[in-house]
Amino acid sequence: MPEIRQNLATREWVIISTERAVRPEEFKSKERKKTEDRPPFVEKCPFCPGNEDKTPDELFRVDAGGEWSVRVVPNKFAALKTEGERMRRIDGVERAMSGVGYHEVIVENPAHNQTTGLLPEENVAHILQAHRRRYLDIAADRRMELIIIFKNHGEAAGTSLEHPHSQLIALPIVPSQIRHRLQDAIVFHDDYGECVYCRMMRDELAAKTRIVAESEHFLAFVLYAAASPFHIWILPRRHAASFGTIGDDEIADLAGVLRAALRKLYFGLGDPDYNYVVRSVPTGIENANYFHWYIAIVPRLGKAAGFELGSGMFINTALPEDSAAFLRKVEG
Amino acid sequence: MPEIRQNLATREWVIISTERAVRPEEFKSKERKKTEDRPPFVEKCPFCPGNEDKTPDELFRVDAGGEWSVRVVPNKFAALKTEGERMRRIDGVERAMSGVGYHEVIVENPAHNQTTGLLPEENVAHILQAHRRRYLDIAADRRMELIIIFKNHGEAAGTSLEHPHSQLIALPIVPSQIRHRLQDAIVFHDDYGECVYCRMMRDELAAKTRIVAESEHFLAFVLYAAASPFHIWILPRRHAASFGTIGDDEIADLAGVLRAALRKLYFGLGDPDYNYVVRSVPTGIENANYFHWYIAIVPRLGKAAGFELGSGMFINTALPEDSAAFLRKVEG
Repeated sequence: MPEIRQNLATREWVIISTERAVRPEEFKSKERKKTEDRPPFVEKCPFCPGNEDKTPDELFRVDAGGEWSVRVVPNKFAALKTEGERMRRIDGVERAMSGVGYHEVIVENPAHNQTTGLLPEENVAHILQAHRRRYLDIAADRRMELIIIFKNHGEAAGTSLEHPHSQLIALPIVPSQIRHRLQDAIVFHDDYGECVYCRMMRDELAAKTRIVAESEHFLAFVLYAAASPFHIWILPRRHAASFGTIGDDEIADLAGVLRAALRKLYFGLGDPDYNYVVRSVPTGIENANYFHWYIAIVPRLGKAAGFELGSGMFINTALPEDSAAFLRKVEG
Repeated sequence: MPEIRQNLATREWVIISTERAVRPEEFKSKERKKTEDRPPFVEKCPFCPGNEDKTPDELFRVDAGGEWSVRVVPNKFAALKTEGERMRRIDGVERAMSGVGYHEVIVENPAHNQTTGLLPEENVAHILQAHRRRYLDIAADRRMELIIIFKNHGEAAGTSLEHPHSQLIALPIVPSQIRHRLQDAIVFHDDYGECVYCRMMRDELAAKTRIVAESEHFLAFVLYAAASPFHIWILPRRHAASFGTIGDDEIADLAGVLRAALRKLYFGLGDPDYNYVVRSVPTGIENANYFHWYIAIVPRLGKAAGFELGSGMFINTALPEDSAAFLRKVEG
């Protein structure tokens, strides 16, 4: 019998399709060229060392060993413009906001053929430091309401550039999906007097069946209602609504857990295409007691078709407990 | 300057990326094999005439000219099971519903190489009759809460079978996305005393700039806040919350408008991959004065990456008014 599962925090339902279920090994991709077989430097790549003048002016960098380890630059093809006023226009059906915002690129490492999960832990910590620095700088701009940090790895995940990088987009509005999640989280807090994400962590720690990695400050697990195979959340154990509040020791700790999760996907599934997203509360309510920041990792092993578009639901052909058991066994 | 637009009804924001904007013609796909160059019959295809025994037992058919025009059969690889009780299980973070539901396939025409937009108008009406018949039959099953009818056309839209077909999935729960849309629609009705979708139609008729096709009973337009290039909605002019209430004359009329919209995409954009979805109110509240059924057509010309996963928002590189003007000129 298939099962329809609900994510306690997002309230989203997903069909766990036991009839179409596939063993974890079968998700392994065979086509990817191994990291070591790809060139470490590409002359035309704007993110490779020596081509720093091909990107817009650098916003931040972390140096290590005499060269840069991580660079942050504005996206050359930005979806939003940083200059300009936050102006709302309402005229009948036409409801618009000026497209002010930030769209930045975090170049994660000098080597073109690297991938986040294979970088040294220290380098992953540098990436997270860059994320935090830009998060805090941009959060101080009162025109902005939400800051999203994300990574697109591989073609199915929507990337066009091979050089390892993540991105940041800051918005002058709160997307309806986020607003609804906040509203639902408020209701849970009102009902039970605790953050629904804290509650999820407690239940996952008790159940043990979906945990992928643990550390002093973070917990990584496959979601009970995973929307797609190997859908992972990484949450700080400490209640905190905003990624901007992360401390130095937490960054060092998170670098290990994030790297472990990505390595498990790399070795276990043959370097699958994936997205990760750092989800935070909107700016201005960083101390909310009802919301919790987290990183979602979504390997792109499924496809959204008409049903998904028409319902907002997904069909997952992998049993989350099997996915987690599989990943636990893989080197992290 | 880019613009962030909000859909009045769904409250969803979308970035209209003027910096990355592309002219309508540039979305034209070149790779698709023309319909007339593909075989009209494929021996191994379970949906081709003569292979009726390869599908599970037929649920409904429309005959025309001595043979079947449209057939409805259960999906052989159903995501949900029709037999069984609607049972809810709640245990901490684990919140599940038994996977009871319907998953059916509507074979739209005997010819393997056809495509919905090129079928005779009468055939399109037969498809809609089959949709309505199954909708009404399943809505009578009180275990079901929502019925979604959809079509996946082409690989990017998630189909694996070439033979023209649509699908129906009935769910024993209301997905959170739908629930939130209903809640927002109730608030609008409470504020303004009218259905927000009726209001949208009125405003689109006044603006004229985004209309693609019109008929006695239906209106087709590119959304002001189109989530992707050429994102179209078709709404009945008469207020009705459920597709199940559509009349015979409305079906004949809708067949013309749906066919015109799909033909415009076929000829204007070179048979792009697309999904369409018939969205209705949950069963049991068919007479709601705040919700309106409609068909959404989504050509798959963009890609959801980390930003879209992390925000629920989309970046559209086509200006909706340009898309609509382009489609108006194409033969319908």
